[in-house]
Amino acid sequence: MTKINDIFGKDLTVLNVGLASMAKSVSDQGVKVIDLDWQPPKAGIPRLRTTKSGVSMDAANQEVVSRIKGGKAVLVGMGIARAVIPGMHDHMILHAGPPIEWGRMCGPTRGAVMGALIYEGLAQDEEEAVKLVESGTIEFSPCHHHHAVGPMAGVVSPSMPVFILENKTFGNRAYCTQNEGLGKVLRYGGMGPEVYARLKWMETDLYPTLDRALQTLPNGIDIKSLIAQAMHMGDECHNRNRAATSLFLRAIGPALARTNKDNEVLAKVIEFIDRNDHFFLNLSMPAGKAMLEAAEGVEGSTIVTVMARNGTDFGIRLASMPERWFTAPAGKVQGLYF
Amino acid sequence: MTKINDIFGKDLTVLNVGLASMAKSVSDQGVKVIDLDWQPPKAGIPRLRTTKSGVSMDAANQEVVSRIKGGKAVLVGMGIARAVIPGMHDHMILHAGPPIEWGRMCGPTRGAVMGALIYEGLAQDEEEAVKLVESGTIEFSPCHHHHAVGPMAGVVSPSMPVFILENKTFGNRAYCTQNEGLGKVLRYGGMGPEVYARLKWMETDLYPTLDRALQTLPNGIDIKSLIAQAMHMGDECHNRNRAATSLFLRAIGPALARTNKDNEVLAKVIEFIDRNDHFFLNLSMPAGKAMLEAAEGVEGSTIVTVMARNGTDFGIRLASMPERWFTAPAGKVQGLYF
Repeated sequence: MTKINDIFGKDLTVLNVGLASMAKSVSDQGVKVIDLDWQPPKAGIPRLRTTKSGVSMDAANQEVVSRIKGGKAVLVGMGIARAVIPGMHDHMILHAGPPIEWGRMCGPTRGAVMGALIYEGLAQDEEEAVKLVESGTIEFSPCHHHHAVGPMAGVVSPSMPVFILENKTFGNRAYCTQNEGLGKVLRYGGMGPEVYARLKWMETDLYPTLDRALQTLPNGIDIKSLIAQAMHMGDECHNRNRAATSLFLRAIGPALARTNKDNEVLAKVIEFIDRNDHFFLNLSMPAGKAMLEAAEGVEGSTIVTVMARNGTDFGIRLASMPERWFTAPAGKVQGLYF
Repeated sequence: MTKINDIFGKDLTVLNVGLASMAKSVSDQGVKVIDLDWQPPKAGIPRLRTTKSGVSMDAANQEVVSRIKGGKAVLVGMGIARAVIPGMHDHMILHAGPPIEWGRMCGPTRGAVMGALIYEGLAQDEEEAVKLVESGTIEFSPCHHHHAVGPMAGVVSPSMPVFILENKTFGNRAYCTQNEGLGKVLRYGGMGPEVYARLKWMETDLYPTLDRALQTLPNGIDIKSLIAQAMHMGDECHNRNRAATSLFLRAIGPALARTNKDNEVLAKVIEFIDRNDHFFLNLSMPAGKAMLEAAEGVEGSTIVTVMARNGTDFGIRLASMPERWFTAPAGKVQGLYF
């Protein structure tokens, strides 16, 4: 925890200088605010253009934008998390958002962790899973510390198959599991036999089928290009992925047929993808990761390259300081719940 | 030919009453125009609301619109033209647009006719094809006289496989060949070994593969629903069919896998569809036909249910008189040529 995070543990009285709406959002949360009626002077204040060490922020940001725009995310293959994700090991569980310990995890994230341990065979049931975690033998680590991303709880356990995306311009890679679909699924914290059975099928049937097909495509599948097309077809590639999922199935279709070993397995694979328009989400997210991570490490840049939450904390990271998380409590989303 | 069509054979002097732009479009074509400066009186002229026999045109049009909107076009199967298209026989060639004899056909339509006769094995080459046609043994008939539609030249010959669309609300059917793709293809009047080889492959590989899959889908594939979705994904389903072709492949994908007999054939089928975004055109057109034809035969309706051209003539038909073509010369399209 950095010093700035320590502040939020204490009772605060906030002094607001400027926009009244910022004072309101603080007082709405029951925090005392002194709202100072102040406007910035119209002239005489130079714009902050350089860092303390004299690096031009505009130049740094231009470099970052140029790297992001120059990135090219290609699906180059698949693998099992423990074998392909850097730093992954048999007792590690990756999760969404900034670092968090078990005690502070929200319900759905805990559910996903317990479910993953049962799926892994490390625990027989939820109680055993909790005991295992509390014994300290499980190491938790953010996906983002391993070039990975995960939707919702974002839990990745060692046996899970993952897509491997490569940024062809810069050579870096990013990883993401296969999307389970909607409803009672691990990434929403869902536990139960049907969840583990689906995850197992994704490991024994879905993954080998897709993997065999991908191995016959020497150039992989250009995910950035599919995203560009899908954006013109109504997708925003996070909560709407219908076009992109369709285009992906077209792109991999001939290879799926050529490497087919069992008609019924192939039919179920196509059905699984067809019935889950979010299938492409787990390709668009690592594509974004692969392209943004290549832009990190540019001193002086103010551009955010990571925005992620674990259900308890929300965190960002900057291109100029990619090792550092800036976190705050994850607010309750004002939206339509189901 | 009706009397109104006879007029266009003679030199004309046109008297234009009203909109000056109509006079201009006539004079632009080198025809003499007398442009009368006239405006309709503001009141006192009753709107024409009934036919001579007293039928309400508004009521008739409402009935037609209600039938069109109530239609539901479903792909229910496939078949060979000679076996499934009503009125088709071994020496019949269907074509796009209103009726036309060989002597008045434009180049691309003639090319498509000659190509079709060679593909059928009725002629060895173009010269033989022309002789065969001129001998009078080939009967030409518009697709629209057989519940069929065809893009561009719209040539359908007896051995060609066709999609069978059924309007589930009214029970009528419509027919259309499989789309060949862009480039040198029969529907643009393309002739040559590669054109015939592709048509043959579509008959021996593409058709049986799709047909086997469709036979396992008791409810067929709801084409109207795919069109509705594709319209929200940037397609207009005539010149842009990328979303609809993708959605169709998703819809038939699992059945294609289940009925697969040869991986390489299936791969080529998926590749063929993937490489031709217009594949869905030959499903959207008969879907439109199936839904519009069910609205025909309503006395007094002024709604156009057919608009079609054969390269020489453009023709329309009305819901109230579906047996009658109103034709005019097909103008040269003002557009981008390739």
